[in-house]
Amino acid sequence: QKRYTITLLPGDGIGPEVISVAKEVLKLTGSLEGIEFGFQEMPVGGSALDLIGLPLPKETLSAAKQSDAVLLGAIGGYKWDNNEKHLKPETGLLQLREGLKVFANLRPASVLPQLVDASTLKKEIAEGVDLMVVRELTGGIYFGKPRGFSTNENGDEIGFNTEVYATYEIDRIARIAFETARKRCGKLCSVDKANVLEASMLWRKRVTAIASEYPDVELSHMYVDNAAMQLVRNPKQFDTIVTNNIFGDILSDEASMITGSIGMLPSASLGESGPGLFEPIHGSAPDIAGQDKANPLATVLSAAMLLRYGLGEENAAKRIEAAVLDALNRGFRTGDIHSAGNKLVGCKAMGDEVLKS
Amino acid sequence: QKRYTITLLPGDGIGPEVISVAKEVLKLTGSLEGIEFGFQEMPVGGSALDLIGLPLPKETLSAAKQSDAVLLGAIGGYKWDNNEKHLKPETGLLQLREGLKVFANLRPASVLPQLVDASTLKKEIAEGVDLMVVRELTGGIYFGKPRGFSTNENGDEIGFNTEVYATYEIDRIARIAFETARKRCGKLCSVDKANVLEASMLWRKRVTAIASEYPDVELSHMYVDNAAMQLVRNPKQFDTIVTNNIFGDILSDEASMITGSIGMLPSASLGESGPGLFEPIHGSAPDIAGQDKANPLATVLSAAMLLRYGLGEENAAKRIEAAVLDALNRGFRTGDIHSAGNKLVGCKAMGDEVLKS
Ligand SMILES: CC(C)[C@H](C(=O)O)[C@@H](O)C(=O)O
Ligand SMILES: CC(C)[C@H](C(=O)O)[C@@H](O)C(=O)O
Repeated sequence: QKRYTITLLPGDGIGPEVISVAKEVLKLTGSLEGIEFGFQEMPVGGSALDLIGLPLPKETLSAAKQSDAVLLGAIGGYKWDNNEKHLKPETGLLQLREGLKVFANLRPASVLPQLVDASTLKKEIAEGVDLMVVRELTGGIYFGKPRGFSTNENGDEIGFNTEVYATYEIDRIARIAFETARKRCGKLCSVDKANVLEASMLWRKRVTAIASEYPDVELSHMYVDNAAMQLVRNPKQFDTIVTNNIFGDILSDEASMITGSIGMLPSASLGESGPGLFEPIHGSAPDIAGQDKANPLATVLSAAMLLRYGLGEENAAKRIEAAVLDALNRGFRTGDIHSAGNKLVGCKAMGDEVLKS
Repeated sequence: QKRYTITLLPGDGIGPEVISVAKEVLKLTGSLEGIEFGFQEMPVGGSALDLIGLPLPKETLSAAKQSDAVLLGAIGGYKWDNNEKHLKPETGLLQLREGLKVFANLRPASVLPQLVDASTLKKEIAEGVDLMVVRELTGGIYFGKPRGFSTNENGDEIGFNTEVYATYEIDRIARIAFETARKRCGKLCSVDKANVLEASMLWRKRVTAIASEYPDVELSHMYVDNAAMQLVRNPKQFDTIVTNNIFGDILSDEASMITGSIGMLPSASLGESGPGLFEPIHGSAPDIAGQDKANPLATVLSAAMLLRYGLGEENAAKRIEAAVLDALNRGFRTGDIHSAGNKLVGCKAMGDEVLKS
């Protein structure tokens, strides 16, 4: 009997609801696959601020580090929006990523045939979209120093941040991206702003250098403004995209909206070793929190990524993915993906349908 | 008889073709409105590199500065893509923006009823989109110092840039944005990443402060990742968007693609005083350069913006815009916006149809 410890971080807003569904799904999957899970639930984000006064309590980080994988719900909410930086829920998430050293964020965006109508794009454009954004997650302008506030020579207040990448940071994310592309359709598009930014010029140089290790993967480069356009014009042209932290933040959200069902999209954040961090792409949706309206499937699919990438339990991952598809095929939909002719259910009921499958 | 000097900067790729059409349109409009134009054509970008060895020759900048307005075609091409930074065509454009101190870039993105089918978005989503991106153009990470290459404490090569905004830079672009929103539907959305970046926190603070001067404009704030999503989900929610240089680069391109007809979209770049810079949003399209296939309408509409914002010649501007609509209504389309039932024409012929209107 295999045994894994999973840290659950419900977080804020709809986080607790979707985590509770994912936990049940993991439990059942484990019992069917002969895996035992030990769960420990810890506070993070706004709820940790309210409870302990810090967005990432020490105990939460050390519990996460000692476990085999971490599953996060969502963080943030209006309540804490005007907090100072070190007391923002978001800061807790960034500290968690940094603390777990999960530099590679994998964000799949694919349009399921069952949900193609949910996209705002025309059917012929949306149909068959299946791409993966590999986002660098622990570097760049999110973490670069110097940063802060100051005054310039005219006595004017300034706010500043540093976009910085070192060769080793680019090399390691590039390798993950090439490996990912190799397992998919063998096409990698690296996105940067190398016509303007030095940090991007180094990015392009290193990605090009690493390409020689992967002769079977076809590498292309694209400027970020063009990538933002091409995702709207013809998202099917992309297989795997690799980009820096801030461009990845923007483009992966854009890509997820192109699928029309961001309530469906999971993500995995991985380091060289140690536990990975798995979370839905969507936010904490404070406006529907506690109303049993949230779509739990992104978190359930994040649990599947946790099994696949975090624990190497491919069969258990596939079982969850198949159960999600089955619930969709049987016509069950939460509000965000609902359309005429289907059965509208709440968060918990959607979870029950997955459990039945 | 009013007389204005216009600097024409054809640039690279399709630039010369589209500028030549816009010049004819300006000439005819001038003769109908009692305005005389003196044109001076100067090199910029890759063609200036080939001719003179610099992407922005001194003579070009000083001619531009001394004229009443500047109309640019497009710059860049594969040929110069691997040039060092100071010898990139793009660097010429950035030096031009800096030299003319045009800190406010206005980029309208609207879906014409005639062209709603050109959008990849569903008709009900695309129909009626009419937004304006006000992009800060001479600050932020494009120009921030320090920037460059270095080695870190481990001897690893690094590339770095500085995102920096001073209060006065934010205040002046915010005022332009509020003025713009006031003349439109009175709604301004400021886009930043204030949950992570100090430069964005100052941005949000100052935009909020300036809002008190414009009580009639409704201000909202949005994170850039969410904005990239919302543009796909429901672009009609936006009226005027104000954002920094790099986010504006990305979002305005995304917004322009949402209209489906980036060959139609003009832009204006304005400073406190001195000549404005007017250019189509599209690039130099080297693959169709010299083939008489380019859509000249974005440049023609940029000439209309030049008349309106650069010279205060509202009537002449309206005349051009009406002529463009008329040519479209009569069914003429270049390849990029062509659909069944319309008349496919080349760049020059499209110009002739506008001239007839
Ligand atoms: C909440 C925020 C700090 C975070 C980010 O910008 O990385 C989020 O947008 C994401 O993409 O996970
Ligand atoms: C060519 C490039 C330097 C430029 C920019 O990034 O500003 C272009 O993308 C634009 O948006 O005008």
